[in-house]
Amino acid sequence: MRAITYDGTLRYVDDYPDPVPDHDNALIRVKYAGVCDTDVQIAQGYMDFSGVLGHEFVGTVVGPLGTELLGRRVVGEINCPCGECELCRRGLGKHCRSRTVLGIAGRDGCFADYVDLPEKNLHAVPDSVSDETAVFAEPLAAALNVLQETHVRSEDRVAVIGDGKLGILTAQTLALTGADVTIVGRHPERSALIDEVGSPIPIVTEVKAGNDYDVIVDASGSTDGLATSISLVRPGGTVVMKTTVAGQHALDLAPLVIDEIKLVGNRCGPFEPALRLLKSGFINPEPLIERIIKPEEAVAVIEGGVPGLKYVVDFS
Amino acid sequence: MRAITYDGTLRYVDDYPDPVPDHDNALIRVKYAGVCDTDVQIAQGYMDFSGVLGHEFVGTVVGPLGTELLGRRVVGEINCPCGECELCRRGLGKHCRSRTVLGIAGRDGCFADYVDLPEKNLHAVPDSVSDETAVFAEPLAAALNVLQETHVRSEDRVAVIGDGKLGILTAQTLALTGADVTIVGRHPERSALIDEVGSPIPIVTEVKAGNDYDVIVDASGSTDGLATSISLVRPGGTVVMKTTVAGQHALDLAPLVIDEIKLVGNRCGPFEPALRLLKSGFINPEPLIERIIKPEEAVAVIEGGVPGLKYVVDFS
Repeated sequence: MRAITYDGTLRYVDDYPDPVPDHDNALIRVKYAGVCDTDVQIAQGYMDFSGVLGHEFVGTVVGPLGTELLGRRVVGEINCPCGECELCRRGLGKHCRSRTVLGIAGRDGCFADYVDLPEKNLHAVPDSVSDETAVFAEPLAAALNVLQETHVRSEDRVAVIGDGKLGILTAQTLALTGADVTIVGRHPERSALIDEVGSPIPIVTEVKAGNDYDVIVDASGSTDGLATSISLVRPGGTVVMKTTVAGQHALDLAPLVIDEIKLVGNRCGPFEPALRLLKSGFINPEPLIERIIKPEEAVAVIEGGVPGLKYVVDFS
Repeated sequence: MRAITYDGTLRYVDDYPDPVPDHDNALIRVKYAGVCDTDVQIAQGYMDFSGVLGHEFVGTVVGPLGTELLGRRVVGEINCPCGECELCRRGLGKHCRSRTVLGIAGRDGCFADYVDLPEKNLHAVPDSVSDETAVFAEPLAAALNVLQETHVRSEDRVAVIGDGKLGILTAQTLALTGADVTIVGRHPERSALIDEVGSPIPIVTEVKAGNDYDVIVDASGSTDGLATSISLVRPGGTVVMKTTVAGQHALDLAPLVIDEIKLVGNRCGPFEPALRLLKSGFINPEPLIERIIKPEEAVAVIEGGVPGLKYVVDFS
């Protein structure tokens, strides 16, 4: 089958062996797969990953026979926990230390004609949700996880650092609370795009320190994002860290204690709420698609650092 | 009057001018004042403070005439906010940017025969609470603030890093939730002392990473405390930062995001709950007193880095 693989070198291949689903796993024919900044990092050596990249997809279950979702259009959660360790038993499966993660750790991803995942990871896509919308289920779930873990009040002043895909999706979910949301980014022209998506959120390129935001989400994808976030949050406020940056970083910790700031790490999120918001139309991510590309084009896009918003690889 | 002052040099003086209380301030004759590690840091230049040190005390209100608490034994909150800025109006007075802080910022402290504070900062001490106990109201309030800001559940596994005064007081308040509390420290012999205080909390000198504590409180007072805390907390767990360490520190941030850890800065706390717990006897801090010293001895103790538990300066 066709696949985008990494083994120290990023390649497009057309002879990768089809996955053979294990016990309890379903086989999915991939329609669309979304390119994420994590793919860019993995292709630079992050996570020491080897195999097929990709963890955002929509596709159709094609096997095995007897699978409950056979023939259904699905999206899939990316963490595959062992189900037996103490963390799993405590409901912390997404943090299971033996987990595999689709296209990120120990498990081939969805930049391919076929992918396999445990059936319990799959969620049927409502008929009214288009493939172009459903492919955003995974990043939208990650965006929604901010609200899953942090109580944002309708009177809060919120800033999202970063106007990339995740920053914009996160700002959109936060705006649904009624809170006053601003995006701090480098592309004010994307504001029109967000408006088109349904929720007119301003993108500003500069903001003065001491603005006293109640909640800041760092979705900058940059090493500076956290320091910027801390400079903007009010005393007692919350900084949600969505940006994974490898390596050691210098940080002045005293203000965190003196100003009683909360730093909250935040990763993958819940799929069903994401599908509900896509079905309701409260979030319409389609305008965030930069381009639908062929599998042969994906290597250049990933190696180029994803210049723009969402690239979607068409495996149909 | 007698006072311990700092102006680049730490001194004991006996001719410091008596405070003249401003509008709304009360004058207090100090009985006991507790030495805190923050005093040690201030005497090393932290906060650029100049004036009388000290922020933990019990004393008697001696003026002005008409003051509601005249003649009463009191303890006092250390933050004096402006009361008018946006943070104050939002109930965040302890973070007011124009605040003065007793013996820490812009306001003479309580290592002196007399101290003045706004009357609204004062809390009457119940008759049944001894002076030796009441002098712990401020650090106990700070310890209690962990529970004010972080929900600790009775089934949680909790570790406190540091077996100094604040670490022990914090562990004692956390143990009252019913949670399984361990102190990680360097003085296992202090366990007997805690037992004497009423709540047998083990002090261990070593703990393996991957222990998956739900909540960690860093009261180590050391630059290593945070990294240790992060290595011990479970995915999704909370690290409460009680340790103020000046300067930039290298920190690997990726695990915070991947493991969705919460870092929560935490400082001063509520006095009335502290007084209730002292009155009820659920917390008895008296065994933590290392020695009651004369004002003339305080300079040596502070310059020596407070070798032991709580030193209490007797200004009676």
